[in-house]
Amino acid sequence: MAKPSPPKQKTSKKSGLTYADTGVSIAAGDAMVGKIQHHLHRTHGPRVLGREGAFAGMFRLDYNEKLFKRNYKDPVLVGCTDGVGTKVLMAIEMGVHDTIGQDCVAMNVNDLIVQGAEPLFFLDYIGTHAVDPAHMERIVKGVADGCTKAGCALIGGETAEMPDVYKKGDYDVAGFTVGVVELKKIVEGEARVEKGDVILGLASDGVHSNGYTLVRAIVKRARLKLGNTYPELDPERTLGEVLLQPTRIYVKPIIGLLRGYKRVKPVSGMAHITGGGLVGNVNRALPDHLDAKISRKTWEVPPVFDFLQKHGGVERDEMFRVFNMGVGYTLIVRPHFADAVAQKLARAGETVYRLGEVVSGTGRVRMGA
Amino acid sequence: MAKPSPPKQKTSKKSGLTYADTGVSIAAGDAMVGKIQHHLHRTHGPRVLGREGAFAGMFRLDYNEKLFKRNYKDPVLVGCTDGVGTKVLMAIEMGVHDTIGQDCVAMNVNDLIVQGAEPLFFLDYIGTHAVDPAHMERIVKGVADGCTKAGCALIGGETAEMPDVYKKGDYDVAGFTVGVVELKKIVEGEARVEKGDVILGLASDGVHSNGYTLVRAIVKRARLKLGNTYPELDPERTLGEVLLQPTRIYVKPIIGLLRGYKRVKPVSGMAHITGGGLVGNVNRALPDHLDAKISRKTWEVPPVFDFLQKHGGVERDEMFRVFNMGVGYTLIVRPHFADAVAQKLARAGETVYRLGEVVSGTGRVRMGA
Repeated sequence: MAKPSPPKQKTSKKSGLTYADTGVSIAAGDAMVGKIQHHLHRTHGPRVLGREGAFAGMFRLDYNEKLFKRNYKDPVLVGCTDGVGTKVLMAIEMGVHDTIGQDCVAMNVNDLIVQGAEPLFFLDYIGTHAVDPAHMERIVKGVADGCTKAGCALIGGETAEMPDVYKKGDYDVAGFTVGVVELKKIVEGEARVEKGDVILGLASDGVHSNGYTLVRAIVKRARLKLGNTYPELDPERTLGEVLLQPTRIYVKPIIGLLRGYKRVKPVSGMAHITGGGLVGNVNRALPDHLDAKISRKTWEVPPVFDFLQKHGGVERDEMFRVFNMGVGYTLIVRPHFADAVAQKLARAGETVYRLGEVVSGTGRVRMGA
Repeated sequence: MAKPSPPKQKTSKKSGLTYADTGVSIAAGDAMVGKIQHHLHRTHGPRVLGREGAFAGMFRLDYNEKLFKRNYKDPVLVGCTDGVGTKVLMAIEMGVHDTIGQDCVAMNVNDLIVQGAEPLFFLDYIGTHAVDPAHMERIVKGVADGCTKAGCALIGGETAEMPDVYKKGDYDVAGFTVGVVELKKIVEGEARVEKGDVILGLASDGVHSNGYTLVRAIVKRARLKLGNTYPELDPERTLGEVLLQPTRIYVKPIIGLLRGYKRVKPVSGMAHITGGGLVGNVNRALPDHLDAKISRKTWEVPPVFDFLQKHGGVERDEMFRVFNMGVGYTLIVRPHFADAVAQKLARAGETVYRLGEVVSGTGRVRMGA
């Protein structure tokens, strides 16, 4: 998006090929660039430099020299990339394109904050069959919404029109984010988690952006209709609306919490609950000699997961290995601080569960009844 | 890639669905992660922190406090994202997967250096029908090769298995890079380019990574065979080999050049020649009141472009609007320094052309005979 498209091309009157003949629409690209600029601009603060037509986005790290130098003596940049998986196909099937961008931002920034980094900026990559300027504008609107929620700047992106790779109407969305953390404040997990630490969980906003290949297989197999309302699921929203609910963004509560502690380090490890569920992600914050003992009774699994399990005939353990089951983010906290941390997160708007504790073991997550 | 896959799943013996039933292969994901780790590691220097299983890659900005603080008083981060377009389909058709990663790195880092930024790190996103660990390892090998050439660290990435989005055997590759430039050393283009400045061009390594939808249309229409050797094109290499030649990476000569000038700023603007060719990219470094006057006689168009033009019946002007035509990167330089800059770049291994000069105008590129 930071890139303007090549100049408009005349269609050749001769029999020779032109680029336009191949189905790549330059005019549509130009129209899109115009439509999306204001979505980028609304995420920009004084740290964003640069101009339209630039080859890359620019972010002034040290825009306020004193402020940055006070906060960061030895800054570590943190970068990650992720997409939204096949949730994008659900958005396409529903014809709802303005929330998948938030999913993409969430999947990235929630990974970034695990190490304690505050997100600085974001870029998106959209591969598509053909540029539909209206669709692209909706997608980028969602990306900008997500960036606003995460407090980061959308400084650029790329839209690649690839009619032979993507089917008509299809697209894929990937994102990239960069953040910064002071070297001494990196949340290390492995090295700091101790026996007796308390495991806190933050409620998810539904399925988030993992397991959608299974979700779609269940919908197909059970002949569920995305446009229908199922009372046991949600009396107010259609199945499609429930399944498209955007991934929750945990940046502000988590970064706010970490900033609040200047000297002590109450948080020893964190995890973003993505593909693999609690069992496949909480372990990523554990050393080899400790287990995370989590009781399933400590929170109520939201109806959407029971609904999917029932209609897919999926085993309960498999559900816990694929989906977040209602817990989107976890923190491992020193026991002395557990109540205070839980209170701060609740005050920041999160629903907090005390899932269990760290015990002797082999680096695994033990899910108990 | 920084992410391990979820734990292996048992295939259910009951009739219920499992994630594995849907075609997403966890075991293949695990195998891939093992295969690619050493490619990441060979790009890592002392500034890369972190460990396997981390949610995001970490890069220590200020690893040597004195060195960084001496070079950067007001650091600006520069980020960009790009893919390789449908060149990826040519790699798939040829069954050659180990150079497309270099293309992806090149498309990104060559954009980054336009503003004078030195690339720090890179992440890749691969969307695919199904994870073939051997293919993925070849792709990531190419990414790591590109990172080595660009002097940046490959700190992470993501492989998304999306069987319903990508056709069997297909994949898409996108990349993301972050660099840093001192605020006062940003190469501004628009604001600094003056009448009389000299335009230098650096030779490309073939078609690079733009215009492949047209390339593929020409190959199809003229019934060319990628496995054939065409003497007028290249007596030594097949058509497919010529077309898959990796995009040249201009980081080391350009950053080396810029670092060599401590006080003066001989380079007023630069451009990476991507989609749109010289006419659609050199203009991005021009203010509204100046034109770039380029003579086509100042360099020899490589045979691959004549070959494509002839077989596609493409008009000459259209060729110049789509392809780099032999010039992959341009610099706009103060006339007094033009010879010295050209010599330095030649000594760094580049083939340098004096393409023309900046004249009064309206911000356009005028291609003369």
